[in-house]
Amino acid sequence: MNAGSQQDLFLDNVRIADTFAEAFPATATRLIVTAVSQRWAVIAAQVFCGNATSVIACDVEAAVERTLAASETPDGRPGISILAFAFDRAALETAVQKRTGQCILTCPSTACFNGLPVTADGQITVGGSLRYFGDGYQQSKKLGKRRFWRIPVMDGEFVCEDKFGTAKGIAGGNLLICGRTSAAALLAAERAAEAVAEFPDVILPFPGGIVRSGSKVGSRYPALRASTNQAWCPGLRGLVDSELPADCQATYELVFDGLSEQAVTAAMKTALQAAVTVPDCLLVSAGNYGGKLGRFHFHLKDLLPGIGPE
Amino acid sequence: MNAGSQQDLFLDNVRIADTFAEAFPATATRLIVTAVSQRWAVIAAQVFCGNATSVIACDVEAAVERTLAASETPDGRPGISILAFAFDRAALETAVQKRTGQCILTCPSTACFNGLPVTADGQITVGGSLRYFGDGYQQSKKLGKRRFWRIPVMDGEFVCEDKFGTAKGIAGGNLLICGRTSAAALLAAERAAEAVAEFPDVILPFPGGIVRSGSKVGSRYPALRASTNQAWCPGLRGLVDSELPADCQATYELVFDGLSEQAVTAAMKTALQAAVTVPDCLLVSAGNYGGKLGRFHFHLKDLLPGIGPE
Amino acid sequence: MNAGSQQDLFLDNVRIADTFAEAFPATATRLIVTAVSQRWAVIAAQVFCGNATSVIACDVEAAVERTLAASETPDGRPGISILAFAFDRAALETAVQKRTGQCILTCPSTACFNGLPVTADGQITVGGSLRYFGDGYQQSKKLGKRRFWRIPVMDGEFVCEDKFGTAKGIAGGNLLICGRTSAAALLAAERAAEAVAEFPDVILPFPGGIVRSGSKVGSRYPALRASTNQAWCPGLRGLVDSELPADCQATYELVFDGLSEQAVTAAMKTALQAAVTVPDCLLVSAGNYGGKLGRFHFHLKDLLPGIGPE
Amino acid sequence: MNAGSQQDLFLDNVRIADTFAEAFPATATRLIVTAVSQRWAVIAAQVFCGNATSVIACDVEAAVERTLAASETPDGRPGISILAFAFDRAALETAVQKRTGQCILTCPSTACFNGLPVTADGQITVGGSLRYFGDGYQQSKKLGKRRFWRIPVMDGEFVCEDKFGTAKGIAGGNLLICGRTSAAALLAAERAAEAVAEFPDVILPFPGGIVRSGSKVGSRYPALRASTNQAWCPGLRGLVDSELPADCQATYELVFDGLSEQAVTAAMKTALQAAVTVPDCLLVSAGNYGGKLGRFHFHLKDLLPGIGPE
Repeated sequence: MNAGSQQDLFLDNVRIADTFAEAFPATATRLIVTAVSQRWAVIAAQVFCGNATSVIACDVEAAVERTLAASETPDGRPGISILAFAFDRAALETAVQKRTGQCILTCPSTACFNGLPVTADGQITVGGSLRYFGDGYQQSKKLGKRRFWRIPVMDGEFVCEDKFGTAKGIAGGNLLICGRTSAAALLAAERAAEAVAEFPDVILPFPGGIVRSGSKVGSRYPALRASTNQAWCPGLRGLVDSELPADCQATYELVFDGLSEQAVTAAMKTALQAAVTVPDCLLVSAGNYGGKLGRFHFHLKDLLPGIGPE
Repeated sequence: MNAGSQQDLFLDNVRIADTFAEAFPATATRLIVTAVSQRWAVIAAQVFCGNATSVIACDVEAAVERTLAASETPDGRPGISILAFAFDRAALETAVQKRTGQCILTCPSTACFNGLPVTADGQITVGGSLRYFGDGYQQSKKLGKRRFWRIPVMDGEFVCEDKFGTAKGIAGGNLLICGRTSAAALLAAERAAEAVAEFPDVILPFPGGIVRSGSKVGSRYPALRASTNQAWCPGLRGLVDSELPADCQATYELVFDGLSEQAVTAAMKTALQAAVTVPDCLLVSAGNYGGKLGRFHFHLKDLLPGIGPE
Repeated sequence: MNAGSQQDLFLDNVRIADTFAEAFPATATRLIVTAVSQRWAVIAAQVFCGNATSVIACDVEAAVERTLAASETPDGRPGISILAFAFDRAALETAVQKRTGQCILTCPSTACFNGLPVTADGQITVGGSLRYFGDGYQQSKKLGKRRFWRIPVMDGEFVCEDKFGTAKGIAGGNLLICGRTSAAALLAAERAAEAVAEFPDVILPFPGGIVRSGSKVGSRYPALRASTNQAWCPGLRGLVDSELPADCQATYELVFDGLSEQAVTAAMKTALQAAVTVPDCLLVSAGNYGGKLGRFHFHLKDLLPGIGPE
Repeated sequence: MNAGSQQDLFLDNVRIADTFAEAFPATATRLIVTAVSQRWAVIAAQVFCGNATSVIACDVEAAVERTLAASETPDGRPGISILAFAFDRAALETAVQKRTGQCILTCPSTACFNGLPVTADGQITVGGSLRYFGDGYQQSKKLGKRRFWRIPVMDGEFVCEDKFGTAKGIAGGNLLICGRTSAAALLAAERAAEAVAEFPDVILPFPGGIVRSGSKVGSRYPALRASTNQAWCPGLRGLVDSELPADCQATYELVFDGLSEQAVTAAMKTALQAAVTVPDCLLVSAGNYGGKLGRFHFHLKDLLPGIGPE
């Protein structure tokens, strides 16, 4: 790593902007979905996590966290974990109830368990709400302090845990990856997203882990809370004050939601270091709002090798 | 095909109940999503179609219709078509606008086109709403009678058609597939769903095309519009009036939404005939509400070979 | 399409070399593999088609031709078709026997059927050889003129057709796709390969349909029949007589094996027209040996739109 | 676990035969394949590992070992590891050279590295053989004690390590999984195979990890070294001395090749314990030849919970 100028850092000849990602507090939960096979757990989780890219317009931000071996799940079947983030606990509870009811309860052979510690003031009700679908035929069983609902369905019963824990998480960690060509930018973003695909405690909520519609707060249209960030649009260079390097054809963004600052930092570090290994990756930057809106600041210079614990 | 009794039909030694599926009118639209590769079109479509299993609790029912060769798409790129169904045009418009904005506008390299004829009183606005994300930098272009919006984003521009056509479609065609074992029932349902995976004009909106939580209208809990259909739950045999064959361990349902009665009939016919080829498939039946709620009735006896056009 | 010079053609601003692909006669067969689900048919076919990229060093060139609906297969189960090509019928017979025995006979739930007309002097024996694995417990059944072997295995029986037809096919149709960047070249090659993924009568035998190690006949090392084609290596520009455009960073080749000249032409046409739609695709060319080695010549100018039947 | 009789063990109500799997010494190597994306590394590895199920008729037994994060690979790109097993080092060298040349050298963007310690008398030559494809344009570079060949190809260069280490491994560890129904047997086998999919130091070389054509040594046909094991064929019950439980409809086998007894034991233990969690799994057994042919014996009773290190 070399400092090309006061503001410029370089990693593998790729410029790293001396800036930071600005992220926000969010309420998070973890669902553990098991099924008769890993394949069916994945199907349920993919359906659960659809249309859950950004809480600006979706009820929740959600994505698969990682694959779980049978030895890691409560019922000893293959599974998958999902992380979901919302503005507050009430919104999270509503979204998780609805999505579990529509996407997991309905899916062949699945069960659904809480994956975070439950505290008196931090819990949300999931199985305890879905149980009414059982129309009086549902049954409760308790194992230690955990209560589970057994809801009769056509392939036997849907087992769903009563209460789920929540955590104070972080939404909106991000990296901007600029390429000399569109194809290189996409490849660098794909490599970065692949590199953190199975990272614990972190998800990338956008399609394939990648966003191409970077936004700014506000718009010339009063009804719109967010609009395209023209400074990053290659098609508008010349018309607007552009932040893009002169020879940049496209930029992609990775958005990171995580259960802790450590988890988001670790994932951003791995993703950044993966992106710069792609030829024609030009610049890695990050999005912020001047630092005044979001409580969490992730400085790119802290993500370089040799900085902090590897 | 043999009639075992007045009520019983048989196909490949599998009993076919002499009953019908009852389905409902719905408003439908078709989206054509293209991208830099088939793989990215599939990713965008999967995210768009998540949490869209049933309009009882989702804003829309949606799934991938089929893969499109580049020669079949408006911009000559690889693509995929999606069908979406809602109670009425206003609900459909809102859902498609939101989901296109969150799941396709955001996804690397995509464009989104209308896939149905547009009529004056049947159209919904999609690109014409999303264009405001362009914050004044969007541009319109017209090709013949079709208007497209070019919305600047970080990898160039998102092209989205202004208006989408809608059609009077059908939601809720269904088959119930009973197996001597859970595994056989799932295999038969999987084979049936696979058999219609690329069928034109029809989708199966549930996870992997299959539902295991068959429901009835109403519940003992007044707030609930639907609840588990105890007559089809193997775990409740003995406790309730069961519709299940004595040796049935599990039942799965396929739900069909289509653009026409012909399309739904064709898909149900292919699916039924695929299911019965699986060993230990015991019975194929269908769900209805006595015929008084839904306008469309699909009789299983009309789905057997030699009945109607193959 | 414009002629930039006597030698130059252009399609969508991409240069199309005025040259031809030179291909060779080969003996072909088609296997139809069915299974309990499409997924298991795909698994068997992928294993069968591994290490089958080029008859220069493999026993056979083979790849999946296309997905088969249950209505298209002899036993009414979901399936997949494979095309396999070899120098002559004897080599093809040996390779297909061995691979069917190791990769399909072994695979859960599969059956294997002939997919070409059988003639007295063009047939190869498949089931008729594998039957001995049954150790005397195998049984033969005849349906019309076709004989099938039922070989007992641990999940029931493996049904394999006795004789398979062969056809005089073509191996080595090809396109060379040059990109301004490596990523663009790969994207153009991927789009071209995706565009013909389900084409009937044609396969692309290399990994993902694409080759990056273009070769020439012979080598400075006498033992080697083929070696890298230095004229197409971007890293050797300046050291050798290069065929590469000045600003070309990478080239990928698609190789086409087909059952007829018509099928190879149709696939090459679709692939070429798909490749040029990718930005930074610079040039499409083809490989030949001066026209003296291979009997079949596919001229790129015949693959442009408006030339011949679309 | 309960002993139902002197010979019978039970786990989750599934009978575990008091027998052992008999396995053989084999020579093993590990290849690390990297590429521009995880997806392309997977494609190369799948093609490399095709038609590599059993050394009885294939040149090698090979399968993907596990996914490698970029931080685990020599060139910092996403990757995958492959394990390959053969009778002896000479056979292994020939097979790995040929397959690397046909399946990895040819595949877009890949590189190929040794993944085992290299010793003077245990090494095989890979890059040192493939280098001749470079036709004199190849270059060697040395990093520490490791030599790499840079072979010019159309997308730049193929980097391949000169020498690969080998290890004394084990081939033929196995489990036999019997189900009350075919579908249950397949599900149990699938769950067992999924459970060890990413296990280090072990592979399952058959399609999808599963074999259905269990064999015995020899045949009534002198030319055949192996033939169907009639004692395990449900279709032959009544005709032969059957080893199958009375109500068993199908059996599947998992075959394990590993770098050490510890690795094979760990994988067999996890797989067995996963299989028995599937309803209608009846019996888990194993195949042996009386203990006289193979040096390694894996007793099923040692794979039960509470036996040895978990």
